[in-house]
Amino acid sequence: MRRKTLNGTPCPLSRTLNVIGDWWSLLIIRDAFAGIRRFKDFHRSLGAAKNILTTRLKSLVAEGVLKIVPASDGTAYQEYVLTEKGEALLPILVTLSQWGNEYQFCKGEKSSVMIDARKRRPLPKLQIRSADGRLLQRKDVLVSIP
Amino acid sequence: MRRKTLNGTPCPLSRTLNVIGDWWSLLIIRDAFAGIRRFKDFHRSLGAAKNILTTRLKSLVAEGVLKIVPASDGTAYQEYVLTEKGEALLPILVTLSQWGNEYQFCKGEKSSVMIDARKRRPLPKLQIRSADGRLLQRKDVLVSIP
Repeated sequence: MRRKTLNGTPCPLSRTLNVIGDWWSLLIIRDAFAGIRRFKDFHRSLGAAKNILTTRLKSLVAEGVLKIVPASDGTAYQEYVLTEKGEALLPILVTLSQWGNEYQFCKGEKSSVMIDARKRRPLPKLQIRSADGRLLQRKDVLVSIP
Repeated sequence: MRRKTLNGTPCPLSRTLNVIGDWWSLLIIRDAFAGIRRFKDFHRSLGAAKNILTTRLKSLVAEGVLKIVPASDGTAYQEYVLTEKGEALLPILVTLSQWGNEYQFCKGEKSSVMIDARKRRPLPKLQIRSADGRLLQRKDVLVSIP
């Protein structure tokens, strides 16, 4: 099914979904954050069909989320690494992961959490604050439809 | 195309995508945050085909993100409102929207931002911090693949 393109809209959420709004793209980005760089390693990690993976990687490169670099070990392989625009997706991954951990797991069920590298402790929940530092709840935030 | 189901995985990001991982679901949730409650208003706002909208609303209710309540004006209509689990998606919407605003708009292009209701000012960027309050960058966060 061809999906509606959301590039013309003034809604920033829609434009983001246009770039990363499918499972595979977000899982590729997760893997890139976890240090995966090569096609065969993305393929092994995700179990996606090769043509799907090829299309998504190409699109993420075209959008400037990933870039292609020479292999880090001097071989002829290509590697995919996050650009600065790609690295800026981290807060999205953190909020997706934290919501999943809170609502989509049973008590005691094995899960994975994102970790503060220095102290090896799970990241605390991302908080929505106002410019003057107040903690905001749902009722304190205005979401508009452009 | 039938997509791989991600419910059995220990990756919380994957499980979240299983619930909200498509454009329409996230745009329905955006509209619900903006105050839309009725089928015809979702339909008008999103321009989605009625069968697509029906399927997504049903699925979001089944997942406990939305619930059906009697019409607020006493008429016979059904209305859809966010549950507590649905309201907890707000940080995801905020991070998606902030990334879109930063990277998918040209300078001076009309966009929409989320607003602090009291001060009427845009929300500052959500920050990733450690449990002891340090501001974390990409290199300070360990993302693992379960």
